[in-house]
Formats: sequence, C-alpha cells, structure tokens
Amino acid sequence: MGNFKINQKDIFFILKEQLKYGRLCELDKYKDLNEKTLDLLVSEALGFAKGVVDPLNDIGEEWGVKFDKGQVSCPPEFKKAFKQYGADGWTAAARDIEYGGQGFPNMMRVIVNDFMYGACQAFNMASSLTHGAAHLIETFGTQELKKTYVPRMYDGTWAGTMCLTESDAGSNLAATATIAKREGNHFKITGTKIFISWGDHNLTDNIIHLVLARIEGAQEGVRGISLFIVPKFRLNSDGTSGESNDVICSNVEKKLGLHASPTAVLNFGNSNDCIGYLCGEENDGLAHMFQMMNSARINTGVSGMTIASTAYRNALEYTKQRVQGRDIASRKQEDVPIIDHPDVRRNLLWMKAVVDGMRSMIYTAAFRADLASEMKDSEEKTHNINLVDFLTPIIKAYCSDTGFRVCETAMQCLGGYGFCKDFPIEQYLRDVKIMSLYEGTNGVQSMDLLGRKMTLRNGAPFQAFKKEIEDFCVKHREHPELGDQVRALKGVAQRLWEAADGLQERKKKDPLQWASYTYPTLTAFADITMAWVLLDMAIIACPYTEKKGKKNDFYRGKVLQATYFVDTTLPHTLATIEICQRHGREVVVIQDHAF
Amino acid sequence: MGNFKINQKDIFFILKEQLKYGRLCELDKYKDLNEKTLDLLVSEALGFAKGVVDPLNDIGEEWGVKFDKGQVSCPPEFKKAFKQYGADGWTAAARDIEYGGQGFPNMMRVIVNDFMYGACQAFNMASSLTHGAAHLIETFGTQELKKTYVPRMYDGTWAGTMCLTESDAGSNLAATATIAKREGNHFKITGTKIFISWGDHNLTDNIIHLVLARIEGAQEGVRGISLFIVPKFRLNSDGTSGESNDVICSNVEKKLGLHASPTAVLNFGNSNDCIGYLCGEENDGLAHMFQMMNSARINTGVSGMTIASTAYRNALEYTKQRVQGRDIASRKQEDVPIIDHPDVRRNLLWMKAVVDGMRSMIYTAAFRADLASEMKDSEEKTHNINLVDFLTPIIKAYCSDTGFRVCETAMQCLGGYGFCKDFPIEQYLRDVKIMSLYEGTNGVQSMDLLGRKMTLRNGAPFQAFKKEIEDFCVKHREHPELGDQVRALKGVAQRLWEAADGLQERKKKDPLQWASYTYPTLTAFADITMAWVLLDMAIIACPYTEKKGKKNDFYRGKVLQATYFVDTTLPHTLATIEICQRHGREVVVIQDHAF
Repeated sequence: MGNFKINQKDIFFILKEQLKYGRLCELDKYKDLNEKTLDLLVSEALGFAKGVVDPLNDIGEEWGVKFDKGQVSCPPEFKKAFKQYGADGWTAAARDIEYGGQGFPNMMRVIVNDFMYGACQAFNMASSLTHGAAHLIETFGTQELKKTYVPRMYDGTWAGTMCLTESDAGSNLAATATIAKREGNHFKITGTKIFISWGDHNLTDNIIHLVLARIEGAQEGVRGISLFIVPKFRLNSDGTSGESNDVICSNVEKKLGLHASPTAVLNFGNSNDCIGYLCGEENDGLAHMFQMMNSARINTGVSGMTIASTAYRNALEYTKQRVQGRDIASRKQEDVPIIDHPDVRRNLLWMKAVVDGMRSMIYTAAFRADLASEMKDSEEKTHNINLVDFLTPIIKAYCSDTGFRVCETAMQCLGGYGFCKDFPIEQYLRDVKIMSLYEGTNGVQSMDLLGRKMTLRNGAPFQAFKKEIEDFCVKHREHPELGDQVRALKGVAQRLWEAADGLQERKKKDPLQWASYTYPTLTAFADITMAWVLLDMAIIACPYTEKKGKKNDFYRGKVLQATYFVDTTLPHTLATIEICQRHGREVVVIQDHAF
Repeated sequence: MGNFKINQKDIFFILKEQLKYGRLCELDKYKDLNEKTLDLLVSEALGFAKGVVDPLNDIGEEWGVKFDKGQVSCPPEFKKAFKQYGADGWTAAARDIEYGGQGFPNMMRVIVNDFMYGACQAFNMASSLTHGAAHLIETFGTQELKKTYVPRMYDGTWAGTMCLTESDAGSNLAATATIAKREGNHFKITGTKIFISWGDHNLTDNIIHLVLARIEGAQEGVRGISLFIVPKFRLNSDGTSGESNDVICSNVEKKLGLHASPTAVLNFGNSNDCIGYLCGEENDGLAHMFQMMNSARINTGVSGMTIASTAYRNALEYTKQRVQGRDIASRKQEDVPIIDHPDVRRNLLWMKAVVDGMRSMIYTAAFRADLASEMKDSEEKTHNINLVDFLTPIIKAYCSDTGFRVCETAMQCLGGYGFCKDFPIEQYLRDVKIMSLYEGTNGVQSMDLLGRKMTLRNGAPFQAFKKEIEDFCVKHREHPELGDQVRALKGVAQRLWEAADGLQERKKKDPLQWASYTYPTLTAFADITMAWVLLDMAIIACPYTEKKGKKNDFYRGKVLQATYFVDTTLPHTLATIEICQRHGREVVVIQDHAF
C-alpha cells in the first residue's frame, strides 16, 4: 500500500558514519539523550511514515480538495492521521517538553520531515505548518497565549497556518495591506490573504492562523508589520472552540499538484468581527516571522530532496523489473531488464548521487544548526551560525530545482509509462514543482545569497563557507583514492571565490547586470557544496571498498557516485563561473518590445 | 478566447530573411507556386490556428476523455473542427493534388503543425496522425486502397492512427506479436496494441488504423513485420462505413497531460473477425513505417518547440503586466512590472533565444528536406539528405527536453501563480512532457545519432553536418560584430569532431561505457546546431541594428539573443565534450544492489 520507498542504509550512513550525530547528545541541552535514542526515533519515524502517512498519498490524490459552502473537507483518513501524528509526538518531536514537545534536537525534525514529506507531501504540510505556527507562539507569545494554544497544536487537536501573502504582497511583504485595529486587549483584523496552505479544512475543530498585519497608523514598509494569532473559531472560557471568528475561506486554488493540500483565499473580518491577538512585539512581525521563514526554506529543500528520493527509488525498482530489448554488449542472449541499458543506468547513477548528496547537504546543515544554536559561545559556534546562514538559500534553491530534475529523470526511466497515472512518478513531478516557486522563488534566493549573505556581518557567512570547503580540501588533497577529485574541487572553488569577489564589485557598479547573474552563481555554490558532501561520504566509505563481498558494494556505491558526480559536474561549474564573470549586458539592454 | 500567442515577425524572419523559402518554388515540383502563395498559406494557417484551434484547448482540457462502454467521446467542438481542418485543406496541404492534397512543399506542413500544435497539441495530434496514416497508404498502398481511403482521410471524413506499440514491444518493435493470417485477398488480424494516440473517438464515423503485424509463419525480428490497413468499421460496397470490424477499445490511459487526446488500448480480432489489408510489401512493414517515424520525430520536435513558444509568450505577457517590488537600480520610484527585475529578464531572454533557435533549426531541416527530396541528383542534394538524417534525432531530443525546460522557466516567471490552473502554463508543462518519452525516448535518439547516424553510408550524415558548420564558420569568422562568437563556435565544434571520432573507437572497445555517454554527446551536437542557427539569424539582422528607431529593436533582439546564448552555452558545451571523453566506468561497474 503506497509508493514510499527509501533506503535506510543511506540515511544511517549520513547520520552515524558521516555526521556522527550522536555528538548532539554532548550538548548540555540534550545530555539526557544518547545516540541510541536518536536511532530509535529515526526508526520509529520511518515506521510511521510507511505505516500511517504513505497510504494517505493515493487517498488524497483521489479525493482532491472538496470545497463547498465555504468549507473544505478532506478524507477521513487524513483527519485520523493528523490527530495521531500530533498525539504520537511527531509534530513537536524537537520542541521543549514544557509545552508538549519531546525535547529532541531540531535536526530530528528535519529527519522526520524527510520521511513524512517523502511519504505524502500534501499531508505533512498540514503538520509542518501547525508546528511552525505553534513554534512561533511558543517563541514570541505571552505566557497566556502559549498555554492556550501551543499544547493543543502540538498534540494534533488544532492545526495552524502562516498567513503572509496578499495579492499585491507576494515576495514583497512591505506591501502588506491587512489592517489590525486595536480594541481593548485584542485587535480587529481586516484583510485578505491568498495562497494559504491548509488555510481551511476539517481535520481539526479549530485552525490557528498566524497573520501578518499592519497596526492602524503603523509606518509603511516592513517595519510597520506585526504578527497576530487569529483563530478560525473563538475560544470558549473552558478553552474549547466556540463561535465563528469571521474568517472565511472564499476560494481554494486549482493547482498543478499537491491536490490533497487545500490552498485557500482567506477573508479576515468581512463583517468586521475578526479578533486577533498580538504575538510578540508590535512592528516586529517580520523579524518574528523570519524564524519560521528560515526553517520553511530548509523544509522546502527537504521536500524537493525527499520527493526526488522517492521518485528515484520508484524508477529504480521499475528498471529492475521491466524487461525490454537486448543487451548492447551481448552479455545475455535473451531480453534484459532495462537497468542493463547504459543510458538508463546513467540516469539512475546521477539520481542516486544527487539524492544522496542533497540529503547529506541538508542533514549537515541541520546538524550544524543545532550546534550553532546550542553550543557555548565559541569560534566553532559562530562558524556554524554563519555556515548555516549561507547554506539556507542554497539548499532551498538547489534542492527544489534539482528535485524537479530528478523527478523528470525518473519519469524518463519509465518511458511512456512514466506519463501515465498508473505510476506515481507523474504525481511527484507535479507536486515537487511548487518548491522552486514558494517560500521565495529561487530567483529571490539567489538575491539573498549573492546580495545579503555575501555582505551580512562583514561577509562572515561567505567566509565560513570558504573555510569549510578549504579545510576539507587541505585535509584530503593527498587522498590515495579521491585526491584527484579533491584537488579538482579545490581548484574550482578557488575560481568561485575570485568570481564572487568580483561580483561584489559588479554589484556596486552595475546592479542590473549583476542581478542577471545571481542565479547561475548560486548554482555554482551548490555544485561545490554537493561535491564536498559527496566526497566527504566517499572518503568515509573508502576503507570498506578494499574488502570483498556483496555488502561492501554499498560503500563502493558511495565512491562511484562521488567520482561520477564530481567529474561530470565540476567542468560545468567552471563553465558557470566563467559565464558569471562575463560583462555582456544583453539581459539589461534588450528592449521590452524586442522580446 | 484561448491562450495561443506567437510572434509572426519571428516566423517570417526565419522563412523569408534566413531561409529565403521562396527558393522552394524554383524546384520543378513547385514551379507553379511562388513566395507570395507560400506567405499566404502561412498567414492563413495562423488565422486558422487562432480562430479555430486555439479555443479547443480549454474546451478539451475541461472535457478530458470520456470513455464509456468501449467508446470514447470527445467535445462536439473537436468534431466540427476536425472536419473543417480536413475540408479546408490543412491535413493534406503538402500532399499531391491527385488524392486531395494542395501540392505545397512538405515544409509547409511543418509550419502548419507549428501553429496548430502551439494552439492545441491534443487536437492537432488527431489531424497529424490522420495525415501520417493516409500518407503511408498513398505511398505504399495499391491503387484501389489509395482511392478507397486516402481522399476521405485527407478531407476530414475519416481519421487515422498508427498502431506500433505492444506491451512487450515499445522501443523494441522486433518483439511485435500481433498476427496476420491470410484469408483470400485480405488478412485476419489478432493482437493488442497499446498507447495508441487517438486510437478511439467519435470525431469521425470511421477510423483507419495502420497496424504493424507479423504474417503467420514470417521470420522473427524486424524483418518479419508487415503493415496493414485495419478500419474500425468495414466499408460497404458504396464506400460508406458499415459493420464493426472487431476492433475494440478496451481502455484509455489516465495521463499527466494531453487530457483531450485519448490514448487507447486496442484489441484487434478478439472474436477472430478483424480484417486487415496489406499495405506495401510483405515483411517490409518496418521500412514503410520509417517514412512516418522520421516525420513523427520531427513533429515531436515541433511540438516541444511550439508549446515552449506559447508558454514563453504567455510568461512574457504576464511579466509585463504583473507589478511587484522595487527596481533594483532605482530607475523608478514606484513598484515596477516584474519584467524589470533582471533575474526574470534573464529567464525571458534565455527562453526567447532557445525558442527562436529551435524554430530556426526545425524550419532549416524542413527546408533542406524539401531540397533533399525534390532537387535533381547533385552533390547538394546528397548533402541535404545527409544533413537532414543527422539533424532528425537532434531535433527530436533537444526540442523535447528544452521545450520542457522552457515551460518550467515560463512557470518560474509567474511565481506561485504559475502553479495554478488559472494560467495555462501548468498545462503546457504537463502536455510537453510526453515529447521526450514517445517516438523513441531521448535515450534511444542518442543511440540513433551516435550509433547509426555516425556510421550510416560511411559516416556521410556526420560529414554533412561538419561541412555545414565549418563552411558557416569559415564564411563568417571575420564578421565585425559576431566574429568572436563565430570563432568560439568553430573552436568548440572542432573539439566535438575529435571527441566524436574518439567515441567511435570507444564504441568498439567498450560499448557499455560508450552507451553511457551518448546522450550527453547528443546535447553537445544540439548546442552547436543552436549556436549556428542563432548566429546565422544574427548576422542577417546585423545591418539593421546600425539604424535607429524602435522597429529595428527587433533586429537588435536577434543579435542580443545570439551573443547571450552562444556566450552562456558554449562553455557548457566544452564541459560536456570533456565529460564525454572521460574513461570513468562508474555507470557500468556499479552493482544493481548498490543503487
């Protein structure tokens, strides 16, 4: 039942052999945990993803979104699973025990999301958004707000959303026009939000919206935006859900993918009767929201990666079973499974490498983020803060675009069957497409990386990334098996550092030309990151590859994917770097009417 | 009504200024035509595409495929348009007058298809398949068969299909298992065909299937396959459609895209009562079918290109209208249309270049194909035959993969709206995906190019391609404006010729390793082809760019797209060439269980 497929060995190799994630338990905050408890959580999450979440994917795709009389209804199986997801502790696995969390490191949330998104992206968005909303309240809300809302969101009683976008304020939140008018202890909210994922549904008897709005009279721009808690139904004095709070779902979008995830237009205060509660400081709403936005960007990368992972594993299974055509080298006399055809196998090896690399990149960032947040003040802590800042837009953009490319490649392995709904890959291709578009388009990510992150704190994030790559290359440049690839990485990285410095100059002199090369430059940084983590894994796997036996083929696979990826990618990275340094201004000078 | 958008000026620039397609009228066969009649046909085809075909796209997407009791039903508007399409001469525009054609050069068919596919891919497949089937009968059938079937297929009375694929014979037609048993003047057909586009429908009162089958007792493999005409309904003595011919549609596929195009499973002779008529020579069926298959490959490229073209023009319009965010260089003080954002503009310029380049590549091949078929024997004729042979798999693979990439990029320009069905781009993305999968996957195309076409007739197709590129480079290497790009093309092409020769050696020594690099090598050939046609257009446009005035911005656009494409593509082409020459055998040696 279901199509979720994942290779546990790849997961644990990254966690235990590459990252040695048990080290998180050396941090004060996690001293009551040990590596075995972490391993257990990973295994249980895999079990929940396979047993509970995976079957929801086909059910949701079949059901779609039913929208009638202003109310969205979802499959009953979703309702049951949402409650169980919270009650079993998955929503708040990485949150503090005080409000119902399980007290695991935040990295575990990323791992849980990997499996749950991989099993059913549409469903896990509901839980993930609920987590994000509750976590915002937990971080910035008053004691009373926290007690009222957070535990019941973490335990699956209520769901939550993030309401940022308006029709004229997508990437540009400065244009937020929703208004909050003070009325005693609370505010009256008026405005319309669009593209609200899981903005309405019947999984829970209440939905707690986190809404960006402008307090009447606040200054224009992003510094006049505040954050509000706006429940769909007001709470009775006993804390149960009561009368309507004038939040109306006026439409749900018809979309390319994620058919089971309702994307709503929400009208707040149509009858001027919508109450909201300030969450955090007045006019600091955007800053507060950034906590969620950074983790949403990582999550978007996780989704891109894990949908790709599932698509790859499905294609792999198909190519082993589907028999067609003769072997080109006549190794067999009968027709062969198509995995024997080199061009199919090329696609599989590329998918294996990029899926494993993306997962390692994401887990590495998540691991470093826990170090960054929980270590005592130190050079290492600062380094990790900076590294994670730099990696965030890379993960978001690269894993979404490459995730899409993997789904495309997986479909190619199935030939005409890939186009048919009898196989799940066409759904993955549709679902994964949103990742490059939401949470800031990938173009916006490239502006963040090459604009903001290169100069933030005097360029510290960029310097941390450089140091990480260079230290790795220095350490392994004479590696007997992988030295060639490490030296190649070092050479290309050096060229990229020079180009990046040049682009900073360009930005001042010719910002338009500069901004037309930020996205390609981001891809060069991503290639370097991928080469690093893939080589890192290969170097760890190397000692096993000298041993014979089928079980060591797993480790040989790590080395083969790394040399293949590095040797077939870095020449293109060099080309990209060369291109980003051109002075051509075609993009800028062409006239609108000449397109 | 409808979303078909196209820039006529781009079309006529290629036809008149680049190709001077009026020269076709110098051929004996077309001596009664002149350039003005060709121009008129182009304009009328555009009018028909906009007026009649374009509105079908939304109608078909809404209707989908209705399949009930073994019968597919389509929107009434499709039925009317199909008849009109035939009656107005579009199906047989390029066929001989004797059987109802209009006698135009075959190139005009490619142009007509460009517009019609661009307006509604799903619909035009019906007409295009009908043309292909009728043309096969016209070419290989007996006088009687021709008279019986061809005129009524060309005029839109009946439709036609191509029945090649079986569940175990997709790319591998040697495995064809459908049987034809001789019975007097005709045959009894038994077998099941799958993936039959427009295999059943109610647009016409009969459907004429062209079916590959094996005559009982014929040898195994491709040399035992024959071609049969199998009508859905037998003909009465007066030529009207009569009783059922035991052809049953047992299923239609649910697909990612092309929702208005029924993809059928057809059972022939379930009750042993299906009559077929041999078309052409016994056991030559596959050779006959190749006439259709080559033109189907070009058509697949046309579809990839023109859906991309429509997606690009829709994205362009959106970016001019959608106002969001401030200008990065502060050229304006208010929010600006997003076409002003350089990263959006980068996407637009890339799309413009590749759409124009693909169209030029396809039209060039179509033009040369007419020369190849109608010129008197000469070196030039032979050259053109060889060039078209070489370009065919390049066009099929490159335009399908790049067409998909363009639709992805167009969607990116719309941000989150691109994911919504309120805009047509998500449909284009879904529809265009089939192009890389059918008519031989792109992996199969790369084997055709690097295997067959490199060695066919002692390598003549490859030599013709080389000569074409080198002659162009020699002629223009000192061009005052574009000399840099021409010399860059020459340098990269030289490297590709060497690599291609090396790969021929590799093929003999290590066919598995070789076959794992055929697809990347195909993309290098495609890049060279694109650089050639884009520079060719730019050189023609150059003289106009010295003149001032808005109308010459069109010509400046041709130059800008060429330098941008060449300078940002050829470095990657060089990287691809370098990669294709590696000796790494990772793809071959990795064990199945290590994936």
